[in-house]
Amino acid sequence: MRAAFYEGHESITLGQGAPLAPGPGQVQIRVSHCGICGTDLHIFHGKMDHRVKQPQVIGHEMSGVVAAAGPETAGWAPGDRVTVRPLDHCGECPACRAGHSHICQRLKFIGIDSPGAFQELWTVPARTLHRLPAALSLREAALIEPLAVACHDVRLGEVKAGEYVVVQGGGPIGALVAMVARQAGARVLLSEVNPFRLALAAELGLRTVNPSETDLVALVNQETNEAGADVVFEVTGSAAGAELMTKLPRTRGRMVMVAIFSQPTPVDLFRFFWRELKLIGARVYEAEDFEAAIRLAAARGMPLERLITRVCDLGELGAALRDMERGGEVMKILVRCAEGDLE
Amino acid sequence: MRAAFYEGHESITLGQGAPLAPGPGQVQIRVSHCGICGTDLHIFHGKMDHRVKQPQVIGHEMSGVVAAAGPETAGWAPGDRVTVRPLDHCGECPACRAGHSHICQRLKFIGIDSPGAFQELWTVPARTLHRLPAALSLREAALIEPLAVACHDVRLGEVKAGEYVVVQGGGPIGALVAMVARQAGARVLLSEVNPFRLALAAELGLRTVNPSETDLVALVNQETNEAGADVVFEVTGSAAGAELMTKLPRTRGRMVMVAIFSQPTPVDLFRFFWRELKLIGARVYEAEDFEAAIRLAAARGMPLERLITRVCDLGELGAALRDMERGGEVMKILVRCAEGDLE
Repeated sequence: MRAAFYEGHESITLGQGAPLAPGPGQVQIRVSHCGICGTDLHIFHGKMDHRVKQPQVIGHEMSGVVAAAGPETAGWAPGDRVTVRPLDHCGECPACRAGHSHICQRLKFIGIDSPGAFQELWTVPARTLHRLPAALSLREAALIEPLAVACHDVRLGEVKAGEYVVVQGGGPIGALVAMVARQAGARVLLSEVNPFRLALAAELGLRTVNPSETDLVALVNQETNEAGADVVFEVTGSAAGAELMTKLPRTRGRMVMVAIFSQPTPVDLFRFFWRELKLIGARVYEAEDFEAAIRLAAARGMPLERLITRVCDLGELGAALRDMERGGEVMKILVRCAEGDLE
Repeated sequence: MRAAFYEGHESITLGQGAPLAPGPGQVQIRVSHCGICGTDLHIFHGKMDHRVKQPQVIGHEMSGVVAAAGPETAGWAPGDRVTVRPLDHCGECPACRAGHSHICQRLKFIGIDSPGAFQELWTVPARTLHRLPAALSLREAALIEPLAVACHDVRLGEVKAGEYVVVQGGGPIGALVAMVARQAGARVLLSEVNPFRLALAAELGLRTVNPSETDLVALVNQETNEAGADVVFEVTGSAAGAELMTKLPRTRGRMVMVAIFSQPTPVDLFRFFWRELKLIGARVYEAEDFEAAIRLAAARGMPLERLITRVCDLGELGAALRDMERGGEVMKILVRCAEGDLE
C-alpha cells in the first residue's frame, strides 16, 4: 500500500508500507482523507525529532472506513465510517487516575509518537474510534479532529450565550473556535493579520478585525460599554498575542490558552491581579468533544467545507507542507490517502 | 490630634491633623492599631505618587473603636469595636454592576486614594465597617485586613481538604495564605528564601522549604507521587517565582496570582497548554472574606500574635518603614495610633 514517510528534516517521500493486521482491540481503517495540521509542519521542520521516528508515517486529522476489525472490537465492523481520536493513554499515571486521560502524563499521540494516517491502511486501537453519521461526508469528516479541539477549547472557556468573545488568530483552529463559540450563542470577534484569512473568516460570516490596523483594546471596550471581553482565546502563539490577551478581558474575565508557545513569553501578571483574570490551558480533546464536533458538523451549522483550501494526492504531501510553510493563502489542505471513492 | 503624614519621597512626619466630623453614612473611629503593609512601603518609596496626595495620611490595616457615628449609620454606635474594609466603590461601572464591586473599575482604596488610618481619629463610610467580637484583641484585629486577603486568595483558589498546596513566599500574606489553606484541610508547603521568615513559619507549625537549597519541583513531585501540586499560590512577585509556579501544579492544577508584578514577566505558557493549568488572579477581598477572617481569628486557630514583630508609636512610622525596607528580620510591624488603651 502507498504511504508517505517523514524521513527527517524537511523530507517526505511516497513509498510502500506494509499494512498492519489488526490485533486484539484494534481495527484497520482504509483512510479516506487526512488534513495537514500545524503539528505536521512542525514535524516536517525537524522540531519534533525527539518524538518522531524516521522514517515514519505521520498525520492524525482523518476520516475513513473500517477495513478489518481484530478480536475484542465488539461494535465495529468493516464498512463503518469513522474518525479517530488519536490519543493513547497509559491508564496508570496520576492524570489518568484523576480522570484526565486525554492529557495523560505518558500520553502517546498517534501520528506523532506512533504511526499516523498519511497512508492507505492505518491500524489503531478501537477505543479511539468515533462513528460518523451518514449526513457527514468523509471529506468534511477529516475536519472533525480540529473541530473537536475547538469544542474542547470553548467548553473549557465556559462560553455562555450572549457573552462577548475575542478569538486571537484566524488559522484553522482560531476560525473553528470562533464558529463553535458563535454556535454557543456568543458575540464573536476574530482578530487576525493575514488578509487571506481575514477575507475567508468574513466569508464564513465571522466579524473580523485586523489588530495591526485597528486598536483592538479600544474596539472591545467600546463594544462592551467599557466592561471588556468575557472570554479571549489566544490562538496566535505570538508575543504580540500574549501581550494583547491580558488587556482585553473584563473583571473576572477568562482567557483560554490554545496556542503552543515554544518558549517563556512576557505576560502582564499585574493585570491578572488587577482584574482577577483567569487563564485556562486547553489541550487536545476528550471523547465528549469529538461527539460534540460530530453533532455540530452533521447538523450543518458549520461551513467546514469552506475551510478546505484544496485536496491533494498523498504524493503531494511534501509540496503541500511547503505551501503551508509560506503562509499566505492557505487554510486547511486535505490529503487523499486511499485510492478510489470510499463514500 | 496626632497624625503621620506622607510628604513625598521617603518622608513621613508626625503632625497635627484636624479630625473630620462624620457626615451622613460616616463614622469616626478612634484608631487603636494599624499594621504597615508592603503597599505603604511602596508609597513611602514614591512609587504611588500618581495616586497619593502629599501630604496625606496613609495606612489601612487597622482596628479601632467607633468614636462618633454620623446620621444614617443605623447599627453603629460609639464604643463599637471595629475594623474597616478599606474599599470605596462607585456602584456604577461594569465591574460593580456585575457584582465585583471589590474590584470596581474606579475603585478608591481608602488609605491610598483617600486618607488612611495612621492617625488618632479616622472618618470612613459606615458600609466599610466589620464588627469585632470580644474574643479578639484590638492588637490582633489589626491583622484582620491581611488575613481577609488570605481568605480571599484561598477561596478563589478553591482549596479543598486533603489537597496539596504550595505557597511561594513567606512574608505576612504568604504565611497567612499558608495558615488559611491549612485551616481548610490542605497539606501545605511554604517556600521562602529568607532565613528569618523560614524560622518564623516553622514556629507557626508550617512545613517549609528553601528553594535555593532544595529542588522544589522534585520535592513536590516526590510528595505527590509524581502528580504535582493541586494549588500553587504565587506571593513572591519575583521572576523566579513566575518561572517556578508553572512547574509545580498537577494536570488541571491551579495557580493563584497574589503578588503584584510591576512589569511583564516571562511565563511558560506552554505548560498551561500541556497540563491544562489554570491561573487565577486574586485582589483584595469581599465582605465575606472579612467575616471569614474575623471568624477564623476569633476561633483562635490562627497564631496571629506571632506574626507581629513589634508595635511602635505613630512617631516611629518612618523608622519602621526603614526597617521593612532593609528586609531581614521583620514580619508585621504594628503602629499604635490613638494614645491610651482602647480595649
